[in-house]
Amino acid sequence: MQAELVGMARWAKATGQRIVVIFEGRDTAGKGGAIQAVREALNPRQCRVVALSKPNEAEQTQWYFQRYITHLPSAGEIVLFDRSWYNRAGVEKVMGYASPEQVAAFLAQAPLFEKQLVEDGILLFKYWLGTDQAEQEERLRERLEDPLKRWKLSPVDLAARDKYDAYTEAREAMLAATHTDWAPWTLVDFNDQKRGRLTLVRDLLDRLPDTQVEPTEIDYPPLGREPLPERYSVLQPIVNYTPVDEAG
Amino acid sequence: MQAELVGMARWAKATGQRIVVIFEGRDTAGKGGAIQAVREALNPRQCRVVALSKPNEAEQTQWYFQRYITHLPSAGEIVLFDRSWYNRAGVEKVMGYASPEQVAAFLAQAPLFEKQLVEDGILLFKYWLGTDQAEQEERLRERLEDPLKRWKLSPVDLAARDKYDAYTEAREAMLAATHTDWAPWTLVDFNDQKRGRLTLVRDLLDRLPDTQVEPTEIDYPPLGREPLPERYSVLQPIVNYTPVDEAG
Amino acid sequence: MQAELVGMARWAKATGQRIVVIFEGRDTAGKGGAIQAVREALNPRQCRVVALSKPNEAEQTQWYFQRYITHLPSAGEIVLFDRSWYNRAGVEKVMGYASPEQVAAFLAQAPLFEKQLVEDGILLFKYWLGTDQAEQEERLRERLEDPLKRWKLSPVDLAARDKYDAYTEAREAMLAATHTDWAPWTLVDFNDQKRGRLTLVRDLLDRLPDTQVEPTEIDYPPLGREPLPERYSVLQPIVNYTPVDEAG
Amino acid sequence: MQAELVGMARWAKATGQRIVVIFEGRDTAGKGGAIQAVREALNPRQCRVVALSKPNEAEQTQWYFQRYITHLPSAGEIVLFDRSWYNRAGVEKVMGYASPEQVAAFLAQAPLFEKQLVEDGILLFKYWLGTDQAEQEERLRERLEDPLKRWKLSPVDLAARDKYDAYTEAREAMLAATHTDWAPWTLVDFNDQKRGRLTLVRDLLDRLPDTQVEPTEIDYPPLGREPLPERYSVLQPIVNYTPVDEAG
Repeated sequence: MQAELVGMARWAKATGQRIVVIFEGRDTAGKGGAIQAVREALNPRQCRVVALSKPNEAEQTQWYFQRYITHLPSAGEIVLFDRSWYNRAGVEKVMGYASPEQVAAFLAQAPLFEKQLVEDGILLFKYWLGTDQAEQEERLRERLEDPLKRWKLSPVDLAARDKYDAYTEAREAMLAATHTDWAPWTLVDFNDQKRGRLTLVRDLLDRLPDTQVEPTEIDYPPLGREPLPERYSVLQPIVNYTPVDEAG
Repeated sequence: MQAELVGMARWAKATGQRIVVIFEGRDTAGKGGAIQAVREALNPRQCRVVALSKPNEAEQTQWYFQRYITHLPSAGEIVLFDRSWYNRAGVEKVMGYASPEQVAAFLAQAPLFEKQLVEDGILLFKYWLGTDQAEQEERLRERLEDPLKRWKLSPVDLAARDKYDAYTEAREAMLAATHTDWAPWTLVDFNDQKRGRLTLVRDLLDRLPDTQVEPTEIDYPPLGREPLPERYSVLQPIVNYTPVDEAG
Repeated sequence: MQAELVGMARWAKATGQRIVVIFEGRDTAGKGGAIQAVREALNPRQCRVVALSKPNEAEQTQWYFQRYITHLPSAGEIVLFDRSWYNRAGVEKVMGYASPEQVAAFLAQAPLFEKQLVEDGILLFKYWLGTDQAEQEERLRERLEDPLKRWKLSPVDLAARDKYDAYTEAREAMLAATHTDWAPWTLVDFNDQKRGRLTLVRDLLDRLPDTQVEPTEIDYPPLGREPLPERYSVLQPIVNYTPVDEAG
Repeated sequence: MQAELVGMARWAKATGQRIVVIFEGRDTAGKGGAIQAVREALNPRQCRVVALSKPNEAEQTQWYFQRYITHLPSAGEIVLFDRSWYNRAGVEKVMGYASPEQVAAFLAQAPLFEKQLVEDGILLFKYWLGTDQAEQEERLRERLEDPLKRWKLSPVDLAARDKYDAYTEAREAMLAATHTDWAPWTLVDFNDQKRGRLTLVRDLLDRLPDTQVEPTEIDYPPLGREPLPERYSVLQPIVNYTPVDEAG
């Protein structure tokens, strides 16, 4: 599938497509891993990840979509949103960062906003990654105990823990309001993360038109001389790292 | 070392450090992989990769450093530059995109510019990844033949192929002018990419001060009820992907 | 009316209003002067003028509204658009910079786009400044002959000169499509520019709610000492300019 | 002199010059009026005013010059800074918003920073507008009493009132540190604001090289038909404003 993703990127570039993929879902569902699965084979100059921090004071008073719009793609670009404008319908609603009126306004505006993007020709894909609470509990515990994952555990996550039902309810309201013909949601079961990633990428590829664009032919003549080793004069490379088990 | 990188990020956040790491080097040396090695365990909201495309018309007439400066870190942020302002001393010089006067001006300005960043308290690390030409030739061939890597092969790369010596010369001039007390270069041998990555990350960690900041204690009480499975009403998850070899 | 504009600005700041005023109209109608009439008494940190140049290559491929959205106001700000997204329905259409499909798409999208801004609480005012062709001819000639105004005369202006009718037609199509309940146009006769400015400002003030916010009381005690004259030591002021007629 | 300013702008555009003019000075000295004197005859798409508000939280932790650098000119642009990076040596120092260390660091960095801009070819002019305290007192009182000018009176202004000497001292330290060969200050006496403006503009013009660029010849043939009056069908212009004294 990596090869198909690379093909998709080549097609996007050759034809000037603009692709937006939104990754939303439960805490711990595996958004980061799914994003990595899409991007890892792609050119970072073509495929950008947008992971916005919380809005600053001025941004909080602007049109809600404004700071996201700044990051929409130009021709040939693929933009992956690690969380997105849907924050307002999820964490902001459940944790009370947005008022019920703001949430209602968002749910009314989002479909119209997305319609404009789609009518403008942007290819918009919205994925929601789900996971059972038992699985979520296990992953939260893992984050707590694994020093490598501890940063993923914010106080908000824990406060959200006993709000599993509220998140479910918020998600259902979000789907009811924003699952539209022009910008449908796709739900993916991420109880098994690896399978979830495969499922998501497969689905993304299947939704795109046939994306065959042949790479340009490149002539690759022999070098015609002995290849040179690196030679440094100003300063020298540092000594290579020797893992402990090789060191003895 | 992933754990140490996570520790570094925690320290940067707790103490408001701003960290900039520049990745420069030969085509095919392995910049992308090295960047991935640093970032993969870190919070994408804290650690950003900056991979600028070629400047647009207006940018070409601005102060050369301007479009890079936009991306410098705020407190707690780690910014990884996948190529950087040093383009002017490398590809732009060798391929003739910048005039000799522009290159000379850059080499004179860069140390002063970096001095300002360092004096302002930014932690600046500059890595140059080297590889022998024989190795480079092999990797270019691999990019040509492996559909997954084909996008990495641009016409510029091929034009650069028989300019290995010119790149060497450009690099030496760059090192001579910009290897300073306040912003030294570190050269890393990337003939073995995996080892190169380990060497680079180990060096980066060693250059940072002792970064022990304990993660905040988090209370993790039992859930106190049966965990819920996901339940959807508006629409259902798509069917999980079944790999071909499981399908039979 | 300047006092009322100042009152409006105080009200906007005190209550966090966001105000957008669009100035469109015939070439030479007097957009610049009208904008100046609104802004001159206001704080430049509160009231911004947005006068975008033609889009760069990347912007040309983005969602059409994107580069304008970047400049929408935060709480308390007043943004004056010197030309706006309506370029597409005017100069771009008449001069052929946009395809008929693009123009049609714009005319369909603009009302929806504006509806979103208005529903978000932005106060949006759209003014169209009109002038008879005889008047326009005279002003074009003045621009040609007056060295102070020569810069206002671009080749596009002259090319547009015998397209007076096409502009009329484009404007009528624009009004038919985008004069909505939520974002109505106001046409102002600018054959007499001074009167046009008064008419526009009066109308703008009348459309705003009663904007009385008292300035905060400020205590202004006597200075309590002899005021000091300026005294410089490092360098001295330059000699004051003496107009020729005083010089003799 | 307006004609010469227009000539300067034409020259800047034709030759791709980048011009930066900094306006600093006492509160009430007349920065706004001086800026207006420079800009009023110029194309707002070429000549921009930059009047930054106080930095947001993230900006406060960035490299101090970063948010100003964003606004530096591209080829052909003229940027007028209504206050500038010198805030740190003036109001921030006197009012205690910056620590003595930050002020000292700024005074050391500013000349180097400016040297880089100048060496890059940017034409940099720094004006300081001075006024005696007696004059300042009178203008503060006028701002207090004139509703049109009341917005210019901030609590900071009043707090600054009995700090006239501290501002003098701060200015002298600033001049001593930043009046350099490559980026000299020019002090202008603004006790008489009108004369101050003339003096400043005259000086600016005199410092620029001979800027004669002829405007391009433009062919202006007769219209060849009767000019048309405006005709509207969708909606009609509003009634022209009638001043009260004409109304009777």
